Amino acid sequence: MEETVKKGDRTILLSESGDKVAVRAEEGTRRVGGVGVFDTKTLIGVRFGAATTVGNRRFMVLRPSVLDDIGTLRRGPQIILPKDSAHILMDCDIGSGSRVVEAGSGTGALTVALARSVMPGGRVFSYDIRPEHLKVAVDNIRSVGMEGCCEFHAGDVCAPGGIKQTDIDAVVLDIPEPWRALDNAWEALRPCGHIACYCPTVNQVELAMRAIYERRFIEVRTVETLQREMAVVEKGIRPSFEMLGHSGYLTFARKVLEKF
Amino acid sequence: MEETVKKGDRTILLSESGDKVAVRAEEGTRRVGGVGVFDTKTLIGVRFGAATTVGNRRFMVLRPSVLDDIGTLRRGPQIILPKDSAHILMDCDIGSGSRVVEAGSGTGALTVALARSVMPGGRVFSYDIRPEHLKVAVDNIRSVGMEGCCEFHAGDVCAPGGIKQTDIDAVVLDIPEPWRALDNAWEALRPCGHIACYCPTVNQVELAMRAIYERRFIEVRTVETLQREMAVVEKGIRPSFEMLGHSGYLTFARKVLEKF
Amino acid sequence: MEETVKKGDRTILLSESGDKVAVRAEEGTRRVGGVGVFDTKTLIGVRFGAATTVGNRRFMVLRPSVLDDIGTLRRGPQIILPKDSAHILMDCDIGSGSRVVEAGSGTGALTVALARSVMPGGRVFSYDIRPEHLKVAVDNIRSVGMEGCCEFHAGDVCAPGGIKQTDIDAVVLDIPEPWRALDNAWEALRPCGHIACYCPTVNQVELAMRAIYERRFIEVRTVETLQREMAVVEKGIRPSFEMLGHSGYLTFARKVLEKF
Amino acid sequence: MEETVKKGDRTILLSESGDKVAVRAEEGTRRVGGVGVFDTKTLIGVRFGAATTVGNRRFMVLRPSVLDDIGTLRRGPQIILPKDSAHILMDCDIGSGSRVVEAGSGTGALTVALARSVMPGGRVFSYDIRPEHLKVAVDNIRSVGMEGCCEFHAGDVCAPGGIKQTDIDAVVLDIPEPWRALDNAWEALRPCGHIACYCPTVNQVELAMRAIYERRFIEVRTVETLQREMAVVEKGIRPSFEMLGHSGYLTFARKVLEKF
Repeated sequence: MEETVKKGDRTILLSESGDKVAVRAEEGTRRVGGVGVFDTKTLIGVRFGAATTVGNRRFMVLRPSVLDDIGTLRRGPQIILPKDSAHILMDCDIGSGSRVVEAGSGTGALTVALARSVMPGGRVFSYDIRPEHLKVAVDNIRSVGMEGCCEFHAGDVCAPGGIKQTDIDAVVLDIPEPWRALDNAWEALRPCGHIACYCPTVNQVELAMRAIYERRFIEVRTVETLQREMAVVEKGIRPSFEMLGHSGYLTFARKVLEKF
Repeated sequence: MEETVKKGDRTILLSESGDKVAVRAEEGTRRVGGVGVFDTKTLIGVRFGAATTVGNRRFMVLRPSVLDDIGTLRRGPQIILPKDSAHILMDCDIGSGSRVVEAGSGTGALTVALARSVMPGGRVFSYDIRPEHLKVAVDNIRSVGMEGCCEFHAGDVCAPGGIKQTDIDAVVLDIPEPWRALDNAWEALRPCGHIACYCPTVNQVELAMRAIYERRFIEVRTVETLQREMAVVEKGIRPSFEMLGHSGYLTFARKVLEKF
Repeated sequence: MEETVKKGDRTILLSESGDKVAVRAEEGTRRVGGVGVFDTKTLIGVRFGAATTVGNRRFMVLRPSVLDDIGTLRRGPQIILPKDSAHILMDCDIGSGSRVVEAGSGTGALTVALARSVMPGGRVFSYDIRPEHLKVAVDNIRSVGMEGCCEFHAGDVCAPGGIKQTDIDAVVLDIPEPWRALDNAWEALRPCGHIACYCPTVNQVELAMRAIYERRFIEVRTVETLQREMAVVEKGIRPSFEMLGHSGYLTFARKVLEKF
Repeated sequence: MEETVKKGDRTILLSESGDKVAVRAEEGTRRVGGVGVFDTKTLIGVRFGAATTVGNRRFMVLRPSVLDDIGTLRRGPQIILPKDSAHILMDCDIGSGSRVVEAGSGTGALTVALARSVMPGGRVFSYDIRPEHLKVAVDNIRSVGMEGCCEFHAGDVCAPGGIKQTDIDAVVLDIPEPWRALDNAWEALRPCGHIACYCPTVNQVELAMRAIYERRFIEVRTVETLQREMAVVEKGIRPSFEMLGHSGYLTFARKVLEKF
């Protein structure tokens, strides 16, 4: 892998305090939030993993990881966190070549994780009914250079014929009433294809699960994932005081043609 | 995607009680644990997602997902669970084309998850010092048809020159003393490449973190992941009584050339 | 405190495998489940905290703690676990002299914890609509010698006038529809008195909370308590693999005369 | 129970935003943090559970619960939270009449919980080696009117003869190296008496547990308690986003005279 920054490369500048900003190395001077005005051309030729000085501050120059990409997106609606999207990718068996439908596009954070995973050869079909969200997601996907494997659709996946694709490997629903999209999802999925619903409230989980149980899906399962960090301190090691109490529940299932 | 079972296809037979067994559809009669003696040729032509009858029992015929593959491996040493390997894939930015070193091979469960993720174009280099574990892992990887992107090495990643590859995107260490392999891992990694250590005890986590802090790695972070299922019951919905209290801690970091 | 077993003392025999059985030291030979036939008189004079031999097995002779008492009750309906009753006692400010209403009596496990806490001078009024549960609870309270501060009532705390007491410090509801007992609870409580509802499902929690919000209660708060043990193992220390995923939610509030 | 505020009563003023301040109803005008200057005599005759107006703000007038007492203590060193002290009281079988040793006194939050529980007839012996902490604790215990059942000692419970009492029911250690006080604790305890160690780091837990295993204690057990609240929101109910990731581990054991 190339070890120095080339013209046009997307880089991450990491400050000593831990802040990250995404900067593309190119001709010309720009104002970069959190860094200041600088000539991004000076990044060209810097080795990835080395420090550089901008103004009077030092930054580490990093090759963007998928977490960096997600962490530096322009803000929009509440995102699905990597701690949850990791399980969507694993439990829905998403990998290179997968064809995935997601709704809604939101800020595009899950779209980035999906796109990273289906490349090359796969495709993400991302739906949102709100044009302003769709615009944020499209811009964000372009900013990380993943637009080649993503298709955005303005539309309601719950409406009749709302999902246009077929032979889909996975449908991921982050919408308020995912149960209303289940029939469309079933039609779009290949046999044994996967569905994932992301629901913040327990009420949504119950309605989604009951609606899935009524349809031709198997292996219905809802999980909640809690993550806690460990902190090394003077006297040893202990769990971190900081912890996110909740994000959302993930309900998974697989399409079948008939049930037991 | 093909919707019926072809000769040579690996299938999953799911019983009504939830048990799964992997069966390859081919000529000839075999004894299959949990199913009985049957002519696996009869699976050919069955639609994925449909039910079939073997003996007097019904089974759903499923196209194997990565969770099915991991769930039907031949037993060996304690595996890294999908709830944890999902985070290894995400936090180490592993995807198609990635070159990953793992040690030890163990039962091959993580190897399967890694191989599924790096295909096509990537490669998993799997080390184990115990030949008997290596054999289990090799057999298991073959059984799921992923041997094309995996290389197995009998050897100690902690010994001088113990990791032979360079320009590696991620090194995953599931060994008792991961801190002893850190210098080899650093050498093998490309700049900004990722390291993950899986440690069952807190003592290992502390030693690993302190050793990583002393070296040219950044973004050092240990997480513990707890997963709990939700159960729909007569009176509504509640968390499941069943819960795994612990598997292992995951310590992540990234290689840099210099530090702040 | 007396250091040897006296005639009539309740003792706990702890086996090496960790099993506990409650035995009263008295004249005569008895069959004791888990121990065998033996003359319980032989316990008299044994020091608490010392080992004794019954048949060919050794037991530690323990002075019963409240956890021992709860752990050796005769089985009945599902109990409220000490990990939850500890919070009921603390958050409802229950101590010596408190007057507490509970419903239902169930197996009497919470009754024991409440009785232990209100002695001396306090009183537990325990209601159950099912006579067979009431009988189990009464027998269990007698077996631990706490019947002096407990009153049992066959009756429905949700029915008009269902709670006969007034000037009550805390009402603890472990019934399927606690919201139906809220008005009776409010009437029974002294100003600033506490209510606690124990609900297994999230649906019950929501209904209970919404009903409490509508009434003259403040500081409404629902908590879920997860406990995990730590295990010292050969290589150090780690969380226990065993963990109870769920018992019930506890909703707390306090009676006021008017609201903001 | 008296339903109106009497002269000299300690009351809690709860503001609409949820802040609490403890005020004693007595003759004379005082400045009260968070309330302003007012004549506390005006509280006399107000009903507990009713609202009152001070300046131009309304407050609920509450009879202090043990949680109110702990929540309005003057600040000092980090306290043991009620979510943890609840388990100390339950697992150490502390109730009316209990004689308890604690070290260190710290801010006195656990002292308040213990004192509330041992009254009447019991006694809390609270040790601290730092006179400035002891002063905070003594002042705080006085402010809640529980000084009658507490004795404070300036001293090191780890030093030879450091615990002066005998026939103690429970010893609670919130000190950096609790293992150094185990022999004194054993001597002070009655047979079958309880010990609890509160340790923030895992390293302390391991050292404490190993030291306890080596001595004449049984039922050694370390627990971590996680609490999460539930929030009723527009669309239903979900876990709270806010969650404390860690406070401390609690290690419990009981004194015996001999071991298996």
